[in-house]
Amino acid sequence: MSNKKTDSEQILAMEDGPILDRIQGPNDIKKITKEEYPLLAQEIREFLIENISETGGHLASNLGAVELTMALHLSLDLPEDKIIWDVGHQSYTHKLLTGRREGFHSLRKYGGMSGFPKRKESACDAFDTGHSSTSISAGLGMVEAQELKGESHTIVSVIGDGSLTGGMAFEALNNASKLRKNFIIILNDNNMSISENVGGLSNYLNSLRTAEKYLDLKEGVYQSLMRSGNEGTVRTLRKVKSTVKQMIVPGMLFENMGVTYLGPIDGHDVTKMMKAIRYAKRVKSAVLIHVLTQKGKGYEPAERHPSRFHGAEPFDIATGMPKKMREKANYTDVFSTVMCKLGRQKKDVVAVTAAMPDGTGLKRFRNMYPERFFDVGIAEEHAVTFAAGLAAGGMRPVVAIYSSFLQRAYDQILHDVCLQELPVVFAVDRAGLVGSDGETHQGIFDLSFLASIPNMTVMAPKNKWELADMLEAALEWERPVAIRYPRGEAYDGLKEQRSPLVYGRSEVLVQEENAEVSLVAVGSMVKTAETLCRRLTEAGHPCRLINARFVKPIDTDILKQVQGSKLVVTMEENVRNGGFGERFRELLDAGVPEEKRPRQLTVALPDAYIEHGNVDILKKETALDPDSIFQRILEALG
Amino acid sequence: MSNKKTDSEQILAMEDGPILDRIQGPNDIKKITKEEYPLLAQEIREFLIENISETGGHLASNLGAVELTMALHLSLDLPEDKIIWDVGHQSYTHKLLTGRREGFHSLRKYGGMSGFPKRKESACDAFDTGHSSTSISAGLGMVEAQELKGESHTIVSVIGDGSLTGGMAFEALNNASKLRKNFIIILNDNNMSISENVGGLSNYLNSLRTAEKYLDLKEGVYQSLMRSGNEGTVRTLRKVKSTVKQMIVPGMLFENMGVTYLGPIDGHDVTKMMKAIRYAKRVKSAVLIHVLTQKGKGYEPAERHPSRFHGAEPFDIATGMPKKMREKANYTDVFSTVMCKLGRQKKDVVAVTAAMPDGTGLKRFRNMYPERFFDVGIAEEHAVTFAAGLAAGGMRPVVAIYSSFLQRAYDQILHDVCLQELPVVFAVDRAGLVGSDGETHQGIFDLSFLASIPNMTVMAPKNKWELADMLEAALEWERPVAIRYPRGEAYDGLKEQRSPLVYGRSEVLVQEENAEVSLVAVGSMVKTAETLCRRLTEAGHPCRLINARFVKPIDTDILKQVQGSKLVVTMEENVRNGGFGERFRELLDAGVPEEKRPRQLTVALPDAYIEHGNVDILKKETALDPDSIFQRILEALG
Repeated sequence: MSNKKTDSEQILAMEDGPILDRIQGPNDIKKITKEEYPLLAQEIREFLIENISETGGHLASNLGAVELTMALHLSLDLPEDKIIWDVGHQSYTHKLLTGRREGFHSLRKYGGMSGFPKRKESACDAFDTGHSSTSISAGLGMVEAQELKGESHTIVSVIGDGSLTGGMAFEALNNASKLRKNFIIILNDNNMSISENVGGLSNYLNSLRTAEKYLDLKEGVYQSLMRSGNEGTVRTLRKVKSTVKQMIVPGMLFENMGVTYLGPIDGHDVTKMMKAIRYAKRVKSAVLIHVLTQKGKGYEPAERHPSRFHGAEPFDIATGMPKKMREKANYTDVFSTVMCKLGRQKKDVVAVTAAMPDGTGLKRFRNMYPERFFDVGIAEEHAVTFAAGLAAGGMRPVVAIYSSFLQRAYDQILHDVCLQELPVVFAVDRAGLVGSDGETHQGIFDLSFLASIPNMTVMAPKNKWELADMLEAALEWERPVAIRYPRGEAYDGLKEQRSPLVYGRSEVLVQEENAEVSLVAVGSMVKTAETLCRRLTEAGHPCRLINARFVKPIDTDILKQVQGSKLVVTMEENVRNGGFGERFRELLDAGVPEEKRPRQLTVALPDAYIEHGNVDILKKETALDPDSIFQRILEALG
Repeated sequence: MSNKKTDSEQILAMEDGPILDRIQGPNDIKKITKEEYPLLAQEIREFLIENISETGGHLASNLGAVELTMALHLSLDLPEDKIIWDVGHQSYTHKLLTGRREGFHSLRKYGGMSGFPKRKESACDAFDTGHSSTSISAGLGMVEAQELKGESHTIVSVIGDGSLTGGMAFEALNNASKLRKNFIIILNDNNMSISENVGGLSNYLNSLRTAEKYLDLKEGVYQSLMRSGNEGTVRTLRKVKSTVKQMIVPGMLFENMGVTYLGPIDGHDVTKMMKAIRYAKRVKSAVLIHVLTQKGKGYEPAERHPSRFHGAEPFDIATGMPKKMREKANYTDVFSTVMCKLGRQKKDVVAVTAAMPDGTGLKRFRNMYPERFFDVGIAEEHAVTFAAGLAAGGMRPVVAIYSSFLQRAYDQILHDVCLQELPVVFAVDRAGLVGSDGETHQGIFDLSFLASIPNMTVMAPKNKWELADMLEAALEWERPVAIRYPRGEAYDGLKEQRSPLVYGRSEVLVQEENAEVSLVAVGSMVKTAETLCRRLTEAGHPCRLINARFVKPIDTDILKQVQGSKLVVTMEENVRNGGFGERFRELLDAGVPEEKRPRQLTVALPDAYIEHGNVDILKKETALDPDSIFQRILEALG
């Protein structure tokens, strides 16, 4: 970490105290002098590293955006002017410069400051983000709105080169081209997605990085033409509709789309960026400023391993190593291992990820079978239909996408995979409550939206061995299958109970005599149900515990098993609407005669967004923890 | 219509009979001579016009793609080589050339030939399509699959310039750039989306249409440089990483993305296209052939009004006018009228469509308030987040998107609108069964996927007046609201029953004394329920009829009203999974004591894709017609 101050800087700092102390709210940054910019940037970096090393959070992207954020705050008047941060994980400096310094102690903690922009948190947060590639669309809407209102504040969307591979960013650019008013798009190009960036766009941006050559070249061409006395050609050049200027200067791809291009500019030079923003403000159209930044800038471990520090757990500053080492494998590790094994056994197994080789655990598969691994960039829609094409071509694709990101591909799963009954396996990681990333990252809708899709099979494993069994089985069946599993440590209990996986069949784990209560638990809730089962039986309410295994189709055998119970309790880590419990009740009512039918208690998440915080706290708050469920069962039993 | 034959052509035709008779299956087209190509094209056009004028169907796009399809079939070996038709509505000539001539009598009829490619229908249909912008993703998947299998058939994705504005097409292009093997993308550029095309890409393609100029220019530049003796510059030009060739030839946008560009080529010249395809096959990367076609080509009414003949009802060939004139207004007309009225009353109302100003009825709003109308092209994701931006900026956007296309924007509705509780109104047209377009266009999932989203309000009107009331009310409430209404004639019964619309409240329409059966109907099903109510009461089963109005939140007052009934019947034109009925049952079980609780019969569509055909037939097949429901109710009453 290059945080050594020169003598004079240190003296300056000692005299006036930290510059950061002078920034208590929006626009305070404008009071500091030009000479202090580098020092402020350094203080911000130190602040971020110190705080995130304690709380965890997005580090690398924030270290890369320090000067960019400073330049924006120096050039704009907040909150009248608007900044829309794409994804939003890079907005820490923005939060710091808008009076939320104290919030960093409670960053991403329950009740504390969010790690993403939140309109509820500050008037300076113009638009809530969390998923990629939305900022240009939202910014364009704001530009049109203020035009209709007769206002003319500056609106800036800040988007990374990774986010630019998401299709809706392109849809937005295509529409931005029509603008005859100012709209600034800042392309924060760190040459990285969450992991390495991919695709033609990335190569193109790479070529722009060496753009000085083009500029020289342009001059060269003109001079040659002029020297040759061929002024007619020069005039023709200028006349052609899409002018040659656009053809020869960098940024043609954007210019061709109708968006003015400025750049590339050093994204760690505040003054240069301010100059570009000043110029851009005068352009009466959409204008893209191409800014080159370094992910992890100023903290050596993050510079070297930007994807490890994308979303980091608390770490030791000196070494960059996590403070707590994981002791147990998480579900992602299990998935990773099984995929490698299946890749070895089955030559037709291929793997698809949308910019998440690390997060999904597919990196090992990539290293072993590079020709059968596809990282498509942040492009979930394409990922799914591409997989459908692979399946139609005879391969057996496994698409690993986090639950909340899979929402992006609802239509593609419905039409391109399930309508044609193509054998695509979805590995739905981060399903259920994910914790500190909050509302936009909770994977609590997949059981609902996947169950609404015909021909889809949905499973959830009770423990790590069952995840392995399910993945193996899914590749045997010639149909679309989704397997959803939660973030974090894989459950390693119930090791002995590994009855063979049969399509559409649940598994009875505990069967007390004369069971009064039947617990039917989905995936992650089996562990909770185990605890409850013990406690209820001890409290004089003998239990039956069923591991649903299949969320779709629901095993109708369960209906026979629960007959005669007083109460059946369905348990799932998913919203109630459209979830397992509602569909189970429909079957129960239709399939079990009234006199034998138990009452049903549906344990599910409420019809609401769940904020950030420790998962255990969130479960308590939503009454999904063992104590709450225990109480609710006792009440239901009367 | 220019279908007059020259004398010699007529003689030729008389001698040999129609050329089309010689084409009975795949590859038969290769037996005809070069000289016969224009005549065959003419016969195909006559065949299409004659048949579609009887059955209805997509006319304009198919007339535009006749020669393109011929060139493909002449250049490829089907079914080993693959053609993926984007959207697929332009695949009629392909069907004709692959032995499905007889199918045109039953085109889009129940049990008959689909209007879209179907793998189940023919081995020559490589991938089922229906929604836009999927073909490059699917094609790329097939290319990678056959590479892994060691095969090397030619794979061609045919995509329109309209479909290219959809973000996932861009995601796919971005990935196609990595290919080091052959993959042909044909850009069928008719300078139209479903209506006029929009955006920067469209402008860009327009500029390519005059590309001859660029080619001349390129030569000019080189010659000038050479003449000036500045060979060093020329050499520099060639050396720069993204070569100058790519900078000066047309198609730079694609070349910059890493896709080889060929074109533009006359899309009505079979021989020229064959030559281009032959050349393209040799390229060891993704190669895009830019083909210029005219929508409606060869039939004057369709040439002049391509959007009217996009999806046409049966029409009179001589005049181009529909055979049956509509007598009653449909829901789209009602929406159209109310939008204009609201536009006049409220200056903050703005309208957003995704390439459907005609289909959604927003054309009139556009003509009256052009500055408050936004057609974003085929880009549903952008449409929704753009609307969220407009709402965040103080406007009141109404986003009109067909039910099945809204599936594309599930994540954007969930995150960008509902999470922030932004007041965006969704006008969800074509909700329920739509008929002849089949599986991909049935709007039967929206009640499920919209109800899974927190903060969302979902309504469905019983008749045309209620649609007006709902739209007006939705703009009063400061929250996200979706209103879903079906395709076709608006119900104009129950005119007198127009009780004020109160948020979250249902409406009792019929209340017999001692009602044995309570019918709770959603939107389009109210009309059916009215019939049932009469028949049941006549059959000695007095009824109560409730118009749900709100699908989310469900009015809990209904629970009080239905207490004491023997049976409550929920009725909806949506799949059962996650629909109104399932959620109602959950409320009923939780909210009504066992002794007063009626049994519930859930009338909904099955968990299945519903094929094409007349809506009345489809309702019978899915037991959603009055007779079937009547029988089921009698059975349930036992």
